[in-house]
Amino acid sequence: MVNIVSYQPTADELSYTFGGRAAVGKVRPGTILELSTEDCFGGRVRSVGDLPSRVCEFPYLNPVTGPFHVEGAEPGDTLALHFVSITPARDWAVSTTFPHFGALTATHTTAMLHPPLEERVWRYDLDLARGVAVYQARNSDFSVELPLDPMHGTVGVAPAANEVRMSITPDAHGGNMDTPELRAGVTLYLGVNVEGGLFSIGDGHARQGHGEVCGTAIEAAMKTVVAVELIKGVATPWPRLEDDHHLMSTGSARPLEDAYRISQHDLVTWSASLTGLDELDAYQLISQAGEAPVGNVCDTNYTMVAKVPKVVLKDPEVYGAAHATLCDLAKRYSAR
Amino acid sequence: MVNIVSYQPTADELSYTFGGRAAVGKVRPGTILELSTEDCFGGRVRSVGDLPSRVCEFPYLNPVTGPFHVEGAEPGDTLALHFVSITPARDWAVSTTFPHFGALTATHTTAMLHPPLEERVWRYDLDLARGVAVYQARNSDFSVELPLDPMHGTVGVAPAANEVRMSITPDAHGGNMDTPELRAGVTLYLGVNVEGGLFSIGDGHARQGHGEVCGTAIEAAMKTVVAVELIKGVATPWPRLEDDHHLMSTGSARPLEDAYRISQHDLVTWSASLTGLDELDAYQLISQAGEAPVGNVCDTNYTMVAKVPKVVLKDPEVYGAAHATLCDLAKRYSAR
Amino acid sequence: MVNIVSYQPTADELSYTFGGRAAVGKVRPGTILELSTEDCFGGRVRSVGDLPSRVCEFPYLNPVTGPFHVEGAEPGDTLALHFVSITPARDWAVSTTFPHFGALTATHTTAMLHPPLEERVWRYDLDLARGVAVYQARNSDFSVELPLDPMHGTVGVAPAANEVRMSITPDAHGGNMDTPELRAGVTLYLGVNVEGGLFSIGDGHARQGHGEVCGTAIEAAMKTVVAVELIKGVATPWPRLEDDHHLMSTGSARPLEDAYRISQHDLVTWSASLTGLDELDAYQLISQAGEAPVGNVCDTNYTMVAKVPKVVLKDPEVYGAAHATLCDLAKRYSAR
Amino acid sequence: MVNIVSYQPTADELSYTFGGRAAVGKVRPGTILELSTEDCFGGRVRSVGDLPSRVCEFPYLNPVTGPFHVEGAEPGDTLALHFVSITPARDWAVSTTFPHFGALTATHTTAMLHPPLEERVWRYDLDLARGVAVYQARNSDFSVELPLDPMHGTVGVAPAANEVRMSITPDAHGGNMDTPELRAGVTLYLGVNVEGGLFSIGDGHARQGHGEVCGTAIEAAMKTVVAVELIKGVATPWPRLEDDHHLMSTGSARPLEDAYRISQHDLVTWSASLTGLDELDAYQLISQAGEAPVGNVCDTNYTMVAKVPKVVLKDPEVYGAAHATLCDLAKRYSAR
Repeated sequence: MVNIVSYQPTADELSYTFGGRAAVGKVRPGTILELSTEDCFGGRVRSVGDLPSRVCEFPYLNPVTGPFHVEGAEPGDTLALHFVSITPARDWAVSTTFPHFGALTATHTTAMLHPPLEERVWRYDLDLARGVAVYQARNSDFSVELPLDPMHGTVGVAPAANEVRMSITPDAHGGNMDTPELRAGVTLYLGVNVEGGLFSIGDGHARQGHGEVCGTAIEAAMKTVVAVELIKGVATPWPRLEDDHHLMSTGSARPLEDAYRISQHDLVTWSASLTGLDELDAYQLISQAGEAPVGNVCDTNYTMVAKVPKVVLKDPEVYGAAHATLCDLAKRYSAR
Repeated sequence: MVNIVSYQPTADELSYTFGGRAAVGKVRPGTILELSTEDCFGGRVRSVGDLPSRVCEFPYLNPVTGPFHVEGAEPGDTLALHFVSITPARDWAVSTTFPHFGALTATHTTAMLHPPLEERVWRYDLDLARGVAVYQARNSDFSVELPLDPMHGTVGVAPAANEVRMSITPDAHGGNMDTPELRAGVTLYLGVNVEGGLFSIGDGHARQGHGEVCGTAIEAAMKTVVAVELIKGVATPWPRLEDDHHLMSTGSARPLEDAYRISQHDLVTWSASLTGLDELDAYQLISQAGEAPVGNVCDTNYTMVAKVPKVVLKDPEVYGAAHATLCDLAKRYSAR
Repeated sequence: MVNIVSYQPTADELSYTFGGRAAVGKVRPGTILELSTEDCFGGRVRSVGDLPSRVCEFPYLNPVTGPFHVEGAEPGDTLALHFVSITPARDWAVSTTFPHFGALTATHTTAMLHPPLEERVWRYDLDLARGVAVYQARNSDFSVELPLDPMHGTVGVAPAANEVRMSITPDAHGGNMDTPELRAGVTLYLGVNVEGGLFSIGDGHARQGHGEVCGTAIEAAMKTVVAVELIKGVATPWPRLEDDHHLMSTGSARPLEDAYRISQHDLVTWSASLTGLDELDAYQLISQAGEAPVGNVCDTNYTMVAKVPKVVLKDPEVYGAAHATLCDLAKRYSAR
Repeated sequence: MVNIVSYQPTADELSYTFGGRAAVGKVRPGTILELSTEDCFGGRVRSVGDLPSRVCEFPYLNPVTGPFHVEGAEPGDTLALHFVSITPARDWAVSTTFPHFGALTATHTTAMLHPPLEERVWRYDLDLARGVAVYQARNSDFSVELPLDPMHGTVGVAPAANEVRMSITPDAHGGNMDTPELRAGVTLYLGVNVEGGLFSIGDGHARQGHGEVCGTAIEAAMKTVVAVELIKGVATPWPRLEDDHHLMSTGSARPLEDAYRISQHDLVTWSASLTGLDELDAYQLISQAGEAPVGNVCDTNYTMVAKVPKVVLKDPEVYGAAHATLCDLAKRYSAR
């Protein structure tokens, strides 16, 4: 038997922060959670004429669904969220430039005297059956199909130190990491900072390039299924990910090399603890076998992922085999 | 007649965040506020044997006094806080290194494999009459007197977007800017994000070098007098300062060049609006006449100040001559 | 018939700079060049007891083979170097930490008060037949096989503006980019700054993780075959790469986000010119379809690569189909 | 008797690099050198209509006078250059914006999709008698006098490792540091990398704001007098400065915090060696007493200065009292 909870928030039930809000519901470890999430524009950008600076209102951007209280979660524990499925909820999605936001534009922190780049909207048709999103240029008839690779840009818990952070900021609590690695089949580990953990999920992307260079991905409302587990007494300093074949650490900071350093430092020290290697031997091994997929280079903090094949570490058991347990739960859910 | 409010918080009345807490009191514009503030260690580091990592407990670091609700303050207004006096409350102060904190050490974000530098405490004798703090080396008998130049490292309001930030983080709401420019005689302008503004003050320094390179200044509890004013209907994007002879803008970000860019960008555009210069002419003028005192290069965001003599801008009226009004109020207070 | 030139330099014929040296030989466009290159330690680190700080002497690090003068190459042209094969020359290779060098250590520019991390050497056995390099921990008996993926860390031309740069620095002239994308089957495009172009090649890696986090890869002497072509009258601002299925741009700078910006900016504007998309439409397309493999995060400049599948751009002709021409030359060479 | 050498280069005798060129003359230690230097535009920008992108030609920007061979200088020695006087050679100077150059604009490394800001020239009248430069807005009749504070933006020696660097790049060899601290009365210490040292001087500024935010200062041809000394057997890792009351270290790097780190690290370790303090005690002392004047935040590397009053270090003897010796030589020269 699988314990299933479904939650489809109305517009005014959405959150815009991590922390600072009471839970919308409680879930027990071992639960399957069926969720809907809105896109980063709250669904208000529906056509190429809907400029986000006109139809959206700061700070009501990047809504997340939640927060959910996980029963028994206490500071020092780790929450495991396994993404069973992430499915676009509509047959369209959008992407835009936004004034002074993105990697190839002056921003409010990389402050310059340039006027903003043109604000422009692209609408993508999504074909789930064929697994493609259709790019259509705005100023020519160039069109091309891109493979769907659905993911969530924003997943996190309530931050430490009583902080409340906008949902668009990634940091040690997770948040808007915007890494394509956060796709179905992956287990995300988040350190718990407050009782119940209080996790939220949003910002679905039908697909995303590395770094989200223009500032937005192919932004899509999602139907998402998450399997929830709790690992007691094990702390996690920065969000980590696991899929069937890889372990991953994340870091979110500025400048970008610090995001790289955090993620690689965590993967090196984590690998050392999993293998018995001393830190320098682990440093060497990750240096030769590690990958470094870029998350975002446009948000208030940048995000990097450090990734290593499990086989390189000789398939160590991590978090008490939580990933395998959750995959099994996901199978039972799908087969019910 | 001068309206005076005095407030000396007990230890458990101190705050550790901007935002996220109800006001400890209300003040009317035009009020003189007499405050006491604890040092960044909450007064727990009292001798060279009191290592902060042992006697302090995260996140109860860098306490601030407040927040204070300013009557009538609404989002879009600007709060003006004039520092009438900042006086060390004790005849001693302390400074320390702290594990993985500072500019010349690996940190949790500039993450490296180095063990932390030695944690060490220096205790300074303060002689208010002679205006000096006495540095005494720990590993030799080298001793030297440094001039007192009291300031507050941390002043700010509740952040925008419903955020709550640790008091050690500087950002657009102010916070832990750690600039020596925030001394007595200066008026600080802070944009209001929530009703009442909710400002807090803490982190007194008997003096500080530029950048606070080791991570802490000469940390001192303070008796501080602030004159409070409200400028209705005028927004302030980043904290600004004014003394009798200079205008200053601040920026807090990483990397350090972005803190520089924010502060210079604000000073350029502010100068343009004050003088009628177009942006490029103001850019040129600030390029030749502007200064750039470093605030901190050790906190979660780095802080830079952009500064220009008022005479260069032909002594424009700023914020309705709030600085002059507050100086006058301060004089009446001192002469009462 | 294939024009083949072979060149095996003696130790004292190696170069340590880009620019500043006369050509070791001239090659005609259309030539196949058979080269040998030494490893970054000049072959002096041969066992775990050979600490590089003892056996190597600054600045005689990272030797390159060359420079070669390409007949007819003039400033404003582009050199195309197709890597036909890159084969480890010995059955062993080495990697090391090096004092104050690497991403997770204080360095001479990210200057801190930490003593250096331990200097340690790892020796890898290479098994070309099985395609593996064997990692052996120094402080335990942990051992694991890693797949060979031979590449050159350092390829470049004489810089512009009469500069001479150490071979360890990557910049617009190429140099020590340390990207695993520079493997056999790839064509590298380099803008010509001086008559003859004067390209050099070195720093072979049996394989490398993303970012070369400890500062060195699995460093190997190589037998390398390069097919040389010249594209007249076409300038290339930053090194670009092409394989059978992708176009790539590079950027080398600090901080790391600037390396990202340069590479993505070049890929966006290049894609626009190849497809007729306007810049904003290209920005959008690369944002969703682009990749961003990390090169190095340890050298004097950091390197990022921006990469897009050709099919996304509808297989445009680039550089007059130089890649296809060179692949064909490589086939004729291999089949001769 | 004072040994005086005068040198006024013609336009085609100017240099554009550090390294890569034979000396224009030899000087003995103890010599007074009377020089003329051109402005950074080679004197080609003479009126507001002379846009530098039209009248100047890359890489013939930022000419320097030299290099000079100092007799007896060998790698490991230190060159001491005391600036006796720096006097504008004309009664006018210019400043400009330049496409994609400056701190508040996209650049070729902070690459963005913005078109360049407007290129604009400002011409300043210099009144040496009254000690002012007159700013005149281009788009209004706003005019203001700024105090003259003549300095050299660019001073350096031939780099280490056989490198040749454009004169616009600051690094360990000096170069285009663009710090207002390099004014008359100051002694600059430069580590010698090649026989003779080969120093050059250029890029005079009638005055400069901190950071040179628009990319150029008030650029002026200069008549400059330098007293030259050689300190044998003492190495200097990064350029240092000394005036009558301060010691200063410099750092040039990106991001800006690394320039800060280098300069503060050098000042901390130098102070420790001068006072007998251990490194941590020196770190503490500089943290409270040190200043951090910003040099440039616009060049290919950014420059920061770390500065401490000598009295704080108890007036240690530095470089064998070279500054006092050179001040004395300057007095004899002036009095002759």
